Amino acid sequence: MSRALDFILAARRSEIQGLQQLDTTCELVAKVSQLVHALQRERGYSNVHLGSADDQCQDALDALTAQSKLAEAALLDGFEQPDLNRACAAEKVRLFNHIAAVIHGLEGLVKLRAAVRRRALSADESTLAFSRPIAAMLAVVFEAADTASEPQVTRCLVALFNMMQGKELAGQERATGVAGFIQGWFSPVLLERLRFLGESQQRCFETFVDFAPPEALLAWKALAAEPWQGEIERLRQVAVRSSQRQPIPTSLYQPWFELTTTRIDAFKTIEDELTAELRAQCQRSIAEASAELDNHRALLKRLGNLDSNAASPGTRLYNVQATELESVTGDAMGHQVNRSVLDVVHEQNQRLLALHDELALVRTSLDERKWVERAKGLLMQRHGVNEPEAYRLLQQAAMTQGVRLLDVARTLVNKEKNHKRA
Amino acid sequence: MSRALDFILAARRSEIQGLQQLDTTCELVAKVSQLVHALQRERGYSNVHLGSADDQCQDALDALTAQSKLAEAALLDGFEQPDLNRACAAEKVRLFNHIAAVIHGLEGLVKLRAAVRRRALSADESTLAFSRPIAAMLAVVFEAADTASEPQVTRCLVALFNMMQGKELAGQERATGVAGFIQGWFSPVLLERLRFLGESQQRCFETFVDFAPPEALLAWKALAAEPWQGEIERLRQVAVRSSQRQPIPTSLYQPWFELTTTRIDAFKTIEDELTAELRAQCQRSIAEASAELDNHRALLKRLGNLDSNAASPGTRLYNVQATELESVTGDAMGHQVNRSVLDVVHEQNQRLLALHDELALVRTSLDERKWVERAKGLLMQRHGVNEPEAYRLLQQAAMTQGVRLLDVARTLVNKEKNHKRA
Repeated sequence: MSRALDFILAARRSEIQGLQQLDTTCELVAKVSQLVHALQRERGYSNVHLGSADDQCQDALDALTAQSKLAEAALLDGFEQPDLNRACAAEKVRLFNHIAAVIHGLEGLVKLRAAVRRRALSADESTLAFSRPIAAMLAVVFEAADTASEPQVTRCLVALFNMMQGKELAGQERATGVAGFIQGWFSPVLLERLRFLGESQQRCFETFVDFAPPEALLAWKALAAEPWQGEIERLRQVAVRSSQRQPIPTSLYQPWFELTTTRIDAFKTIEDELTAELRAQCQRSIAEASAELDNHRALLKRLGNLDSNAASPGTRLYNVQATELESVTGDAMGHQVNRSVLDVVHEQNQRLLALHDELALVRTSLDERKWVERAKGLLMQRHGVNEPEAYRLLQQAAMTQGVRLLDVARTLVNKEKNHKRA
Repeated sequence: MSRALDFILAARRSEIQGLQQLDTTCELVAKVSQLVHALQRERGYSNVHLGSADDQCQDALDALTAQSKLAEAALLDGFEQPDLNRACAAEKVRLFNHIAAVIHGLEGLVKLRAAVRRRALSADESTLAFSRPIAAMLAVVFEAADTASEPQVTRCLVALFNMMQGKELAGQERATGVAGFIQGWFSPVLLERLRFLGESQQRCFETFVDFAPPEALLAWKALAAEPWQGEIERLRQVAVRSSQRQPIPTSLYQPWFELTTTRIDAFKTIEDELTAELRAQCQRSIAEASAELDNHRALLKRLGNLDSNAASPGTRLYNVQATELESVTGDAMGHQVNRSVLDVVHEQNQRLLALHDELALVRTSLDERKWVERAKGLLMQRHGVNEPEAYRLLQQAAMTQGVRLLDVARTLVNKEKNHKRA
């Protein structure tokens, strides 16, 4: 059998191994989703503990901490799996770097939890400290989406990342609301923050809807009928109408906390739907690719036998510009069998091209986020503005110039880079 | 020592392994360059043999064949090196597929060479058959450039690909010229082909100049002073002025062949410069990265020791949108040591981001080629035009619409895809 056929099969095997690695990554991502949720709950309850005078709720907090620790252990075990001495793709470099940030953040939790129990830090400080590993974990999911090699899986990861991001923003909204209600009124800064968190959530959920698989989308649509939707909206309106001179009952923080918690928990069920779908999609892809590898092996064996009986080399229309793999096989003048072997290579190449295009398309939504985040960071650093203000500046520039947010952001970042170089 | 530090080091190791794989690919590319050159020479001399009545030049042809076979064996040995059972990146899939096409093409040479010696095929058919593995090998170099993970190496590979492509076009120009001179005049079709080959070469060499490292660029500029430059240009003018009614001496094919051969050999010396530079660049990058890994290891060990004495978890400004790795470290409120560990992760992340941007920029030139080739292929298939005509159509559309060639090509290909889907 020709050595060419070995490489055709090797290409297929590579593809399957890529899918298996992707499956491992998705397994990791599912564990990340669990731990993020556990930490979000622990973060919220830690604030309740920090806000209360006695240790009444410490048992409940301890229970949440225990759950976090279980999820933490599961994730850390997952990190063990990739063989560090056999790292391959350069893409892994970024993933490893993000994992380092996650682990570092998780290691800080031991002391954080002790400090919370002694009430040695403020609710804000505690929130920031819990949020660190959560942000690092979101970056891992983003990275997974950005490097996945299968379009359906990529779509699902993009949907999951946006659901997780939206849920984290919902958590911040919950905390901001609690702060305002307990105070009895919402300052303009708090209101601006609430508005920004609301809009940011909406953008996340719109992207989720664009990419979610049917089951998750159905589950999402079912949430629209939930009674907490209207009740939360009513409390948001109460917040907007409050002022230092027209305070609102501080007891409202309780229903606000409970309703927004219900909302966040509902988002978690969507996440579970997505992580299950992710694994299922990986398994399907692996099964399909393996079946095709078997078919391929049989086909190529047959072609290989025929090939060795071929009388003359194929003479095809030659075109150095568009190589043979990209050209049309129909116009070939070559020997039938030679053409058949090349057809397999050609077909494989066409499939890979289509795959590449599809991936590039799905990754566009991630690209936009990357540039916008970097541009926001630049503006915050340069003009000393906060995140909502930085985003508003970008939005205004896009509107004034009549271009996409992505283009404004990219231009800004590139200008800064050239500026630094000069 | 913290497990986070393990992952920081793992990221570095991954990077080094990526560079080592790149070095292997560059070694392969150097062998490809040798074999392409040998086959180009054998292809040219095969035509001389097919055009002559006696077997006078068969010894010379046999010597060239022997050289090709040596280069072939060296390349096939190189293919053995990647471990097929341990393929990693999904990128390898495309490379393997292209290698399959190369091997298939090379396997056809045995029968081709026998047919040439029996004069059992025309010069055109022989040219087409030799050109097949050459085109497949050019695709391997393109693929290597498109997947390289180090910007300097990528630049060098882009320069090499364009030099090889330009040289192959120069070979086609030589063959087209020989056909015209032996005939005693150039038909409009031959002239159009000559013009197209000339323009295409120019585009290749312009890109080469944009990306070549200094030494190769100097060597290239030195070629401008070579006497054959003017002599070849004079012969081109003779060809343009010829017609069926005003024939030119057929003996001109001899100086044309010799001068264009000298030119092609000169291009080969530039290629050698580039392949040497490629390997040197890989070695430099590996050495640098290894030295940094050692520094890193020492630094992290120190940080790790400090870290375990740290009193409290770092509490940094938290920003879910721009994760910690992307935010500025200066504003952190956290403990000094915690910040130091994170600084390393942050710095690594910033470096990877910059690397990613730089790679994306260099790959732009490859992207344009990809889209233009696909668009040309589409036009050739749909309108039954030849390659020069297809290119002309694209150029005209770009001029009329006042947009870049790349944009015309991309729009065309995407329209076709949507059309197929509908």
